[in-house]
Amino acid sequence: MNYETLSPRELRLEVEALYGDYAETLNDEAFEAWPAFFTERAFYQITSRENHERNLPIGLMRCESRGMLQDRVVAIRQTAYYGPRSIRRLISGVRTHGWGEGEMRGVLKATASYLAVETLPDELTRVFNAGKYIDELVVEDGALRFASRICVYDTLLIPNTLIYPL
Amino acid sequence: MNYETLSPRELRLEVEALYGDYAETLNDEAFEAWPAFFTERAFYQITSRENHERNLPIGLMRCESRGMLQDRVVAIRQTAYYGPRSIRRLISGVRTHGWGEGEMRGVLKATASYLAVETLPDELTRVFNAGKYIDELVVEDGALRFASRICVYDTLLIPNTLIYPL
Amino acid sequence: MNYETLSPRELRLEVEALYGDYAETLNDEAFEAWPAFFTERAFYQITSRENHERNLPIGLMRCESRGMLQDRVVAIRQTAYYGPRSIRRLISGVRTHGWGEGEMRGVLKATASYLAVETLPDELTRVFNAGKYIDELVVEDGALRFASRICVYDTLLIPNTLIYPL
Repeated sequence: MNYETLSPRELRLEVEALYGDYAETLNDEAFEAWPAFFTERAFYQITSRENHERNLPIGLMRCESRGMLQDRVVAIRQTAYYGPRSIRRLISGVRTHGWGEGEMRGVLKATASYLAVETLPDELTRVFNAGKYIDELVVEDGALRFASRICVYDTLLIPNTLIYPL
Repeated sequence: MNYETLSPRELRLEVEALYGDYAETLNDEAFEAWPAFFTERAFYQITSRENHERNLPIGLMRCESRGMLQDRVVAIRQTAYYGPRSIRRLISGVRTHGWGEGEMRGVLKATASYLAVETLPDELTRVFNAGKYIDELVVEDGALRFASRICVYDTLLIPNTLIYPL
Repeated sequence: MNYETLSPRELRLEVEALYGDYAETLNDEAFEAWPAFFTERAFYQITSRENHERNLPIGLMRCESRGMLQDRVVAIRQTAYYGPRSIRRLISGVRTHGWGEGEMRGVLKATASYLAVETLPDELTRVFNAGKYIDELVVEDGALRFASRICVYDTLLIPNTLIYPL
């Protein structure tokens, strides 16, 4: 598929499909499949709105390559003290903001809202984290991949240690 | 419409439209229109992830035909002791997994995430139930219908008796 | 684009794009861009299901023109005593109900579910308001605009003063 020749409507549908696949892969806890959504030199960050606006290089989670994402998956699987729980991510308001030019040629900017809810074994499901995805997508091997995904959360107070990706 | 010749993108849009219609029919409390989303011999179940993975034939709600769904609607309307409340269902991450082959020919597998929120008259709206729809769809009378819908919930602790469908 | 000749599937996608742009504009707190989603003589109301069903002309918020929406934005920006918080709106179940006829010619009816979550600085994100959008859309300057948007909420008990639009 030649993504750059798709109509705006078709392109949004492809981005929605990508976001749906991404969210459901994590919802199904198929974490090992998660790094493949990213390019090798991808940037991934979970950060607060305040830190994002100040452009501070800190965040609850910060990875600067696909390898670091893979390390993160290993860490998730090896974490023993973290009790069982499930996180479910819902996506809304997917928007594409056009292909970049100049240095950003081949890069598609896109955004969406997410809502993550958490369920612990003997508790009611509750809102865990809400925020905005700010993404840069590129075409690699004929598919859209994340060159950058920044999860900017509204929720400053995180109910538990955030260990699973958003 | 010949569903089997639709492109993957078009097919997902048709499934999304079906899921939207289904959810909004229930959100509008038009329960009498709910059984028509299913085939005559449809299977409908609301069950926990643990029971689903163990393939246990139990669940909070379990119907093995459209007639049983219709009985359920009668029961909802006749239930007097169940106080007024509204349940709103939101859907995200709709994915199709291809048409089956062999014995499953003509059957489309599809999944999505749902979030149900509940509002009681003098309380704040709260998360009621979150989970995953695992569906088998068939074409009947020119429209997609559910041959099977299994609602696998994350929420083990249900805040109230679950009486309305998801 | 000639909206009246679009297929039902294409039309729903255009409405979904509009709803996504609308929600994200508010989620980004770009309130000044909000009135432009409406026609000059637009009607906007946030009201309870009970008041809506009784057709009562009251509501938490009620504007009868784009000018009144602009006034509302000024009021939001000038409100000092209202502490910082963010509201994030998620949309699901977008449905179009066909173009009107006779007096309603050129008017497209559409509905959707919304879920608004609220985050205060030192608190967990919580459900703020859930409900249904009941809309009338028209084409103006080549784009879909709201001639009427009624936000009918399930949540009778509002956790705080509702000041931001839904």
